[in-house]
Amino acid sequence: MVNDSFETIAQKLNEADRIYLFPHENPDGDAVGSTAALCSMLRDMGKDCDVLIDEELPDNLKFMDDDMFIIPEGEVEAPDLSVAVDCSEISRFPKLEKIFRSAESSICIDHHMTEVPLCDLNYVDPSAAAVGELIFKLMKTMDHVPSKREAEALFAAITTDTGDFKYSNTTRETHEIVCELYDSGIDVSAVSSAIYENESPEKMRLVGEAVGNMKFYAGGRIAVTSVTQEMLKETGAVMSDAEPVVARIRSVRGVEAAFVFKEKAADKTFVSMRSKKDLNVQKLASRLGGGGHERAAGCTLDMGLEDAEKTVVGLAEEMLG
Amino acid sequence: MVNDSFETIAQKLNEADRIYLFPHENPDGDAVGSTAALCSMLRDMGKDCDVLIDEELPDNLKFMDDDMFIIPEGEVEAPDLSVAVDCSEISRFPKLEKIFRSAESSICIDHHMTEVPLCDLNYVDPSAAAVGELIFKLMKTMDHVPSKREAEALFAAITTDTGDFKYSNTTRETHEIVCELYDSGIDVSAVSSAIYENESPEKMRLVGEAVGNMKFYAGGRIAVTSVTQEMLKETGAVMSDAEPVVARIRSVRGVEAAFVFKEKAADKTFVSMRSKKDLNVQKLASRLGGGGHERAAGCTLDMGLEDAEKTVVGLAEEMLG
Repeated sequence: MVNDSFETIAQKLNEADRIYLFPHENPDGDAVGSTAALCSMLRDMGKDCDVLIDEELPDNLKFMDDDMFIIPEGEVEAPDLSVAVDCSEISRFPKLEKIFRSAESSICIDHHMTEVPLCDLNYVDPSAAAVGELIFKLMKTMDHVPSKREAEALFAAITTDTGDFKYSNTTRETHEIVCELYDSGIDVSAVSSAIYENESPEKMRLVGEAVGNMKFYAGGRIAVTSVTQEMLKETGAVMSDAEPVVARIRSVRGVEAAFVFKEKAADKTFVSMRSKKDLNVQKLASRLGGGGHERAAGCTLDMGLEDAEKTVVGLAEEMLG
Repeated sequence: MVNDSFETIAQKLNEADRIYLFPHENPDGDAVGSTAALCSMLRDMGKDCDVLIDEELPDNLKFMDDDMFIIPEGEVEAPDLSVAVDCSEISRFPKLEKIFRSAESSICIDHHMTEVPLCDLNYVDPSAAAVGELIFKLMKTMDHVPSKREAEALFAAITTDTGDFKYSNTTRETHEIVCELYDSGIDVSAVSSAIYENESPEKMRLVGEAVGNMKFYAGGRIAVTSVTQEMLKETGAVMSDAEPVVARIRSVRGVEAAFVFKEKAADKTFVSMRSKKDLNVQKLASRLGGGGHERAAGCTLDMGLEDAEKTVVGLAEEMLG
């Protein structure tokens, strides 16, 4: 797939009046930060621009919403232009497909590898650590210096998608862009506090309990724990609150692979998988009908917690050798 | 206090043959990373250089030790030059005072504000996020391009002392320096994994349990939890393993002040204090004979856990109003 240039994309944005931006569903810091910054710039240019989402933003990302994020209801006027941000497949925002496709033309800005172009114009760069980097470059092309609010949204996008500059996707260019965001007067401590110091007590209790219960196999190379419906009832948390558990138990010394077994029903278990470097969890997950990346994957098994644990740990021990 | 220039300091380093570096006791990522990088450069220049410490390095920082860190035993030959790094008071490395003072001359490179110069030559810059930044600048002055190993040690210094670029001490210059460290081929993912994915299971269990037990006061603005001797026995952890708990419970939404009560004995409790922005915990700690900073402080109380909790929460509620 060949990318269009930011110049061509800028021209298309300039020509449109009514523009809708589409982040992926369950939007993360990069999706929210990138669309918030882009929407702010487009409104500043006099465009009639909104970001369309299908449910409320996560609490810890709401600080970026300056009345831009809209959950559409009833009939929505067709825009001149639809822009998919941090997603390049309709399956990433399925509930908004009709509105997305009602536009005269479309643009995709993303960093997830894809085979088939989604839009009329596309800029997909898998080497970008975050789409926030691409929005920053687009702004540069358009001679737009980000405001403090926009720069903070882009910092939020970049810091969340790079694991606070710890993941291997982070590059020299990532830090170069952050240098320029500092010139807009960003308050990184306030942004980080809003994102990371905004946890519900229910979630904290659930994560604490699940981590406290962890067990080890293969001489400490495999760490596992479970999240049961009973634990959700006790703590008042919901299953999605268990998301940090798997990375937390992977961080134990000597652990190569971590698995969290999430009880969906008596005979249905979702398995979250993470590894350091000795095990490709994507391969493991795909053997069980799931998928993901080398270091982060998942699958759903039609069995209870105990059987799921036996199955996954057995395969992992075999693959670790 | 007026700083000497890096040029003057470079000259002094050039003139010496035998050089000892002194990080502070209980050394953190900045102290270890800064001394490791500086020692490597000085050895590369042909100097007889070691880093002197008074006990083993923490497990998660050992990856930076290329046979440089020495715990001195018996009589030690006096060096030409002693260099205090990330500390500017003898009280920060009291066990090594005699060796430190046996040198013909001394240099201090630090970022902690101090009134009285410790050494013959001093470079103390409280605006530096990490001493790693200062070592990088000293290397530049000496036309030394850091090796991959040195650059990774400096990255470790900077990323730990800035809370992974989240704390307000982080500046544009911090990111500019990291850009140059990338030119030395650093593997940030490997460094971060070595530092952060190296926790003992005992510590993880203790932290999980302490967080799971948290309670709230003042309508959720105050979060507290305790670490008892019983919990240490159960989990096999030691009291210093409880260090992450206070930041963890502060991260709950709506919490302004977090307190962890650590049972030292039946009538002796250490209190760790953290706040977001509405409470100055240094003031609170100092009213109880302790000290610290505005956002992180502590004190020791001659009472049991329950009384300590009543006392501290009472004062905090009063100060929060």
